[in-house]
Amino acid sequence: MTPSLEKLINHFASLPGIGRKSAARLAYYVLGMDVTNVKEFADSLLNVKSSINLCSSCQSFCEREKCDICSDSTRDKTVVCVVEDAKAIDSIENLHEYKGQYHVLHGVISPIDGIGPEQLKLKELLSRIDENVKEVIVATNPSVEGEATALYIGRIIKPLGIKVTRLAYGLPVGATLEYADGITLLRAIEGRTEVK
Amino acid sequence: MTPSLEKLINHFASLPGIGRKSAARLAYYVLGMDVTNVKEFADSLLNVKSSINLCSSCQSFCEREKCDICSDSTRDKTVVCVVEDAKAIDSIENLHEYKGQYHVLHGVISPIDGIGPEQLKLKELLSRIDENVKEVIVATNPSVEGEATALYIGRIIKPLGIKVTRLAYGLPVGATLEYADGITLLRAIEGRTEVK
Repeated sequence: MTPSLEKLINHFASLPGIGRKSAARLAYYVLGMDVTNVKEFADSLLNVKSSINLCSSCQSFCEREKCDICSDSTRDKTVVCVVEDAKAIDSIENLHEYKGQYHVLHGVISPIDGIGPEQLKLKELLSRIDENVKEVIVATNPSVEGEATALYIGRIIKPLGIKVTRLAYGLPVGATLEYADGITLLRAIEGRTEVK
Repeated sequence: MTPSLEKLINHFASLPGIGRKSAARLAYYVLGMDVTNVKEFADSLLNVKSSINLCSSCQSFCEREKCDICSDSTRDKTVVCVVEDAKAIDSIENLHEYKGQYHVLHGVISPIDGIGPEQLKLKELLSRIDENVKEVIVATNPSVEGEATALYIGRIIKPLGIKVTRLAYGLPVGATLEYADGITLLRAIEGRTEVK
């Protein structure tokens, strides 16, 4: 194998979820690609780093001082949905249901990884919460760390007289009871709602 | 989502085996990467296209006129292993067993995709076969197209008085008969070897 190909394989393999075999496949694919296409790909990589910064308000990625969602005056300013990372915003936006604000923590509290509250964008969250905000929805992932972070946020925001909510746990739609894990089933029972 | 991120996601998603979700994951990962790292990645992409060409002898990818294997005088010049693509060379070389030459076809005969013998590096194969070559091992994939290509190569090389062989079909090592597909099992029976 040539050194430059080897190098590209290493770069691909350093990305998450890409093993050495997939990396080799991708690198060989790039070899067969059009030169202009490869140039555009390389430019696009550099562009993403040079042109993107954090929104001064929600800390999401954007190319201006404020992101599209924060600049959108039609969106509800009374609800802030707190997420672990900017990817989660895309997931929620794709539902076309939620019309409030977002706030990106860029991580979750995880003592094992040495991540405490001070490493997250929590100061920024506190500083943007004003009298307009009525509810903070904590939409961290349903993991131990996501849960701990939600509790922490509850502890610091609730004293301000603001409602703090958490996404519901329960059975995924379309699943069968038989294959649900015990903890999920337990949470589904605990969180049962009245049939209307 | 910002336009430059969207663009990078599209580039990642155009690679084989990467769907939109994985592409988004990769693009967000790049966002979090070190700038120098991203620069090296981008350079490496461009490098691969600018510095790599086809070996004048075996048609594999290399950075000089002849690849390392073709330039290696200690390797056996009497055997040529014909492969579909350069990736296959890596697979065989990793075994550290085969010491002969290679020849890359850059494809297989596939009428459905409009690929005939003239689109493959078959002229180059014929032109490098001299009186030293005693055997051509056809190591195309065990697919209908790989098989057709092997037969075609047999038809043009055998008349030159050179042995043409094909990789053995059979059960993969470690597999169980129960889960082998019918055609593989049939080939394993047909190709049975005497117990020594």
